Amino acid sequence: MQVEEIIKGITPINRSIETAAWDKINNKTKPLGSLGQLEKVAVQMSMLKGNLNPALNKRILCVFAGDHGITEEMVSAYPQEVTAQMVFNFLNGGAAINVLCRHYGIDLNIIDMGVNYDFASNTGVIDKKVKRGTNNFLKEASMSREEALTSIQNGIDVFNEIHNKGSMDIIGVGDMGIGNTTSASAIICAITGESPARIAGRGTGINDNTLQKKIETIKRALQIHNINSKDALDVLQKVGGFEIGGITGTILSAAYKKIPIVLDGIITTAGALLAYLFNPFIKDYLFAGHRSVEKGHNIALKFMGLSPILDLHMRLGEGTGAALAMDIIDVSCKIMCEMASFDEAKVDTAL
Amino acid sequence: MQVEEIIKGITPINRSIETAAWDKINNKTKPLGSLGQLEKVAVQMSMLKGNLNPALNKRILCVFAGDHGITEEMVSAYPQEVTAQMVFNFLNGGAAINVLCRHYGIDLNIIDMGVNYDFASNTGVIDKKVKRGTNNFLKEASMSREEALTSIQNGIDVFNEIHNKGSMDIIGVGDMGIGNTTSASAIICAITGESPARIAGRGTGINDNTLQKKIETIKRALQIHNINSKDALDVLQKVGGFEIGGITGTILSAAYKKIPIVLDGIITTAGALLAYLFNPFIKDYLFAGHRSVEKGHNIALKFMGLSPILDLHMRLGEGTGAALAMDIIDVSCKIMCEMASFDEAKVDTAL
Repeated sequence: MQVEEIIKGITPINRSIETAAWDKINNKTKPLGSLGQLEKVAVQMSMLKGNLNPALNKRILCVFAGDHGITEEMVSAYPQEVTAQMVFNFLNGGAAINVLCRHYGIDLNIIDMGVNYDFASNTGVIDKKVKRGTNNFLKEASMSREEALTSIQNGIDVFNEIHNKGSMDIIGVGDMGIGNTTSASAIICAITGESPARIAGRGTGINDNTLQKKIETIKRALQIHNINSKDALDVLQKVGGFEIGGITGTILSAAYKKIPIVLDGIITTAGALLAYLFNPFIKDYLFAGHRSVEKGHNIALKFMGLSPILDLHMRLGEGTGAALAMDIIDVSCKIMCEMASFDEAKVDTAL
Repeated sequence: MQVEEIIKGITPINRSIETAAWDKINNKTKPLGSLGQLEKVAVQMSMLKGNLNPALNKRILCVFAGDHGITEEMVSAYPQEVTAQMVFNFLNGGAAINVLCRHYGIDLNIIDMGVNYDFASNTGVIDKKVKRGTNNFLKEASMSREEALTSIQNGIDVFNEIHNKGSMDIIGVGDMGIGNTTSASAIICAITGESPARIAGRGTGINDNTLQKKIETIKRALQIHNINSKDALDVLQKVGGFEIGGITGTILSAAYKKIPIVLDGIITTAGALLAYLFNPFIKDYLFAGHRSVEKGHNIALKFMGLSPILDLHMRLGEGTGAALAMDIIDVSCKIMCEMASFDEAKVDTAL
């Protein structure tokens, strides 16, 4: 299925069930509204699933990996080689996202969108590589318009391949790519119009000097490239990354198939912003898994009108915040399905 | 075991392992500090367990139920009968805490500390009833000094009975008792010296008029009773509740046995404050499960120097926030145990 067709096929969710969903949760044996976020999530899941007994049986998480030419500018605390090294860590089960996916019973997929390393075909990585890393966007566009389109198409394709293997009830998205908070921050600046100083954060933990360089790098990139802030493909091409394009594609196709999507931190949210530019209806299908420490993340969420489920002061990426939030979504569905009503439990209602 | 002996036997945790715990987590394949709360929890659990591979196998949650004479003053949105009705709901598996305990594999215990209803012996309730409800503390002390001591002793006894049945790695505490946010708020005011207007919240969801009455009720109670704010037993006796005394007893004996305790909202935190007055070393054994919407909760946590793990805008009680946080603690332990180090995974460290 092609990008244009997917984008046009995304429709708003059916809100006809919303009142019935609130009625159901309001009649559960608890004070009105006392389960806070869990209630909102349960109602959104009811709308997304189109019924009052939403369930999360099959959960998928996809980590999109890619390298960034901008690392030449020394904007990260880690060398570019770490991207490929971390992919091997994912494959060996040693990363944080592996621990979380094992704990929560989430199927983990690792997708090479553009790592600067050629993985052997038997490693378990899903090969959707566009190219071995983007260009340094301080010198030229990150990628060609054709490569940007390919990265999104590859994200659509990988979603469809996983989806065809069996049903899924929800998908979480994560990222790996040294230098990608610089790219994601540039995307967010380009789309929201916010200044780099307000968006750029410490990423993997850079010091004051490197942070200043990162801000200047984004500022200059925005000056050099004449970005059309309404054209997602232009934004992606000029300052984006292949893994971000992959995330955009997967989000678009998940929304097309009406599968709820759980975002992680600033990278996946930059990918969601691009999808949002293509079609704002995707917003209905998105859960903001957590609030990252990374400054620009919250601004990007607000731009789409999303508020995060969790706030655990995390800034790791890999989909870790999405995996944790998926469990909150799971338990919210169970609250909706399993709790007794005042009538059923013969409990008096409020005076 | 008697109250005095327990209180004297609580010792600070052994911090000798703290540096080694931080070293271990800092060498995991992730940017320094990027797992936020999870890292702090993992380190605290290492100290509590006295080793660098903490695990949460057996998890216990205790819900303490009791009735309150102060309901005569119409300070709650629900009639007193709801306490017993909700106990039946717990026994039938229909309440929110049942859903969460099933989801997370937590053993749930329901303890009658003073419900105004006589449960048949075969219902599954653990009978630690002091009396059928407290007195109206606007007219007289909630209970006698002897009853206050009994409620704490019963909390110690129930902990020991559960503990003797098999090992436990962690215990969460919860509450049920119509009117108990008024009692808990009065306890917090008495101990912290804060004004009722700053502490009292909307509990089950009272309106402005009832909230004003609740504030005035607490204010007058604090004037009538000459509470010694340093004497936990005096505070409990004058404005407390039987379930709050039970929570205090269980917290004290868990800390005595070096078992980590997860608090829920304002009621369990009021119980923890009383335990803290008895022996401030209990603080080391406490996790603040979540930040309740209830205003006084955060102030009580701060008084003990605790900060909450979760913030999901909840205010239900029953131990629901504790159950959710227990899973975050579980996953934090797994991060500590299962994640690969930079060396193990052959990943380059920061530049």
